[in-house]
Amino acid sequence: MDTQQSVAQQSVAHRTAEFVLTVVDHHGTPLPDVEVTVEQTRHAFGFGNIGFDFVALANDEVDGDEREHLERLADLYTDVFTTATLPFYWGTFEPERGRPDTVRLRRTAEWFRERGIARKGHPLVWHTVQPDWLLGLPLDEVERLQRERIRREVSDFAGLVDTWDAINEVVIMPLFDNGDNAITPLARAKGRIPTIRMAFEEARATNPHATLLLNDFDLSSAYECLIEGVLEAGVQIDAIGLQTHMHQGYWGEETMLAMVDRFARYGLPLHLTETSLVSGDLMPAHVVDLNDHRVDSWPSTPEGEARQADEVERHYRSLVGHPAVEAVTYWGITDAGAWLGAPIGLVREDGTPKPSYEALRRLVKEEWWTGPTVFRTDERGQVRVRGFRGDHRADARGASTAFAVGRDAAEHALVVPTT
Amino acid sequence: MDTQQSVAQQSVAHRTAEFVLTVVDHHGTPLPDVEVTVEQTRHAFGFGNIGFDFVALANDEVDGDEREHLERLADLYTDVFTTATLPFYWGTFEPERGRPDTVRLRRTAEWFRERGIARKGHPLVWHTVQPDWLLGLPLDEVERLQRERIRREVSDFAGLVDTWDAINEVVIMPLFDNGDNAITPLARAKGRIPTIRMAFEEARATNPHATLLLNDFDLSSAYECLIEGVLEAGVQIDAIGLQTHMHQGYWGEETMLAMVDRFARYGLPLHLTETSLVSGDLMPAHVVDLNDHRVDSWPSTPEGEARQADEVERHYRSLVGHPAVEAVTYWGITDAGAWLGAPIGLVREDGTPKPSYEALRRLVKEEWWTGPTVFRTDERGQVRVRGFRGDHRADARGASTAFAVGRDAAEHALVVPTT
Repeated sequence: MDTQQSVAQQSVAHRTAEFVLTVVDHHGTPLPDVEVTVEQTRHAFGFGNIGFDFVALANDEVDGDEREHLERLADLYTDVFTTATLPFYWGTFEPERGRPDTVRLRRTAEWFRERGIARKGHPLVWHTVQPDWLLGLPLDEVERLQRERIRREVSDFAGLVDTWDAINEVVIMPLFDNGDNAITPLARAKGRIPTIRMAFEEARATNPHATLLLNDFDLSSAYECLIEGVLEAGVQIDAIGLQTHMHQGYWGEETMLAMVDRFARYGLPLHLTETSLVSGDLMPAHVVDLNDHRVDSWPSTPEGEARQADEVERHYRSLVGHPAVEAVTYWGITDAGAWLGAPIGLVREDGTPKPSYEALRRLVKEEWWTGPTVFRTDERGQVRVRGFRGDHRADARGASTAFAVGRDAAEHALVVPTT
Repeated sequence: MDTQQSVAQQSVAHRTAEFVLTVVDHHGTPLPDVEVTVEQTRHAFGFGNIGFDFVALANDEVDGDEREHLERLADLYTDVFTTATLPFYWGTFEPERGRPDTVRLRRTAEWFRERGIARKGHPLVWHTVQPDWLLGLPLDEVERLQRERIRREVSDFAGLVDTWDAINEVVIMPLFDNGDNAITPLARAKGRIPTIRMAFEEARATNPHATLLLNDFDLSSAYECLIEGVLEAGVQIDAIGLQTHMHQGYWGEETMLAMVDRFARYGLPLHLTETSLVSGDLMPAHVVDLNDHRVDSWPSTPEGEARQADEVERHYRSLVGHPAVEAVTYWGITDAGAWLGAPIGLVREDGTPKPSYEALRRLVKEEWWTGPTVFRTDERGQVRVRGFRGDHRADARGASTAFAVGRDAAEHALVVPTT
């Protein structure tokens, strides 16, 4: 084991726990010298990505080459990612009032569930991607419709989607002026904290078991002040969402972890909800709103792909190494249709994985993963294993048991037939 | 009346009110055709400045040329300014534990009171200009001492100083790292809103009649979020303090009023607590913390003085024109000893007034002021006058009455001897 690997493993030691597995017969007698195969089946840490690309596939709306292409992309996706962020942008989810895209999104969520992928909805309240039909309505009507929309989606998807970005980008919400929308005036009239309370209370009342996030791209003191105000006001936040779109370049571990430390002091789980790193030219540093930068063509380049792979690895290593972080969601599996046309995907438009994909896969499914490993029980019928937190299974003599590895050491038994 | 003057007067019309003065004899009979002199004696609007320069004079610690120089400066000061901000920086007010500078500051406050100038204390809680003896004490001891210090100052000065910057620069407070201090760790441990609550509740409990401000230089969304959180938490703020040190150049009316509008929406009075404009070279735009810019010499120049005079006039015109603003405090009467050595004073080091002083005096004591003006009562014994809000007096036949002009039209009577 070289030094670098040792440091890397040490830095994520808090993600692992030891467990003892005792192989017993049906009388409960421990069986020494039995071969046991142990393997991890799922990470507890959230390795998320957007699932936007698979709505058509999940709904059987594609065939031929396109279907094959998406199925290969799905294989790459499900091999690495544990959680899919699904698109609930009000303007695209319900472009015509009263005709929400519930059936297609439910089918998509089911499709992910069938593949063992957790589902998250994004977002219930936001001032962007708004339906035109909200414009011009009086504020109390907008508020009533917004509340109904929260209850409808959270209710229609309960059990299928139990994690939500309850509200998105509130720091800028009352001042947002990049296009007309009905939510900015509402947030301005109500104030930020009452607007947040509206989102959380409606969602919580509809699905008390949901995990609800506040999510923002503004990671300055403004977000700290907002969070402190929300917590003082008694609104229950389940996790703090931190966007880290890095079209203008990787911030580096030091800056990233200093930011994470600032938000970690609230004692809440942190989700890096939206991460992107480009594998081509960087967006110029002077651009303030990333949406303002539009280019005809933004190719992925070999140098860019090498840089992206290195940065993806450093980014995930540093964040998985921070105890407050519970999830990192990458913002794009493929360059095809990527946000802003930027080459932020981990897979090229032609469907081949970039080095960044391979780098992330190696971390998630090799370095931080227990593949099928053969042990032999000791004289007490036990094997002692350290594994990453998450689901595991053990197999011996044709019998099998599944168990979760949590924060603390634990013991599990596997009952096998006597030979 | 030219157009420009007309626009200027229109824009501050909300600062004026009409009043009717009836001159009566001691039977209450209205007296027509009597000559009445009406004049304003004080502005309701707060035209503030720091009073730091007059502590030595008020305490008879100077004589000879220095005393004469300060007395001339005091005449310039009291001719224009209505409110003095007094220095209660903990580190300079109580450099040795248990020996606060209470007597000298009380004498200074009394000196201003004798001259009809209102007094404001700055600040009760801040992370800068801290006493060394706080360093290294445990947090609960720091909090106890901070609470005691608030109660002590507010109590010792009740009646003399009833307006306080209760707490200063909280947005940056938990993260401030420009030198060790005991308050940053306290704010970090408590959180921003509980720290603010500490300051306001101690001050309020000690002097229920005090006007208490939250004050900050960070005028971004962060301060909005902080204010919204504080209001949601039920802490009563009497006015929002907005610092506008413009060593790097005047922001212009548009930017300034857009900022004021953002904070006006909380429905609280706004105090521009710290305004400065230089009459020399501008500080380079790249400097983030103004304290980091230190120069050996920073002269006032003729071009700079002309620019400063223009900007001072524009700045005050625009702010007095905004209905939410109740006070503007300039940060320096003289260049001698000015903050950062910058030529921000309205008076040169040699004691001669700059054009900016004359410009401000012309607004405050001429354009927005009713000097002694002679009227003659109509057949009902009345004169009808529109004046700026504030104190006025009327004189006729050797009799006199004082009255305040508020927001609404009002009637006053002046009883005069019959001839």
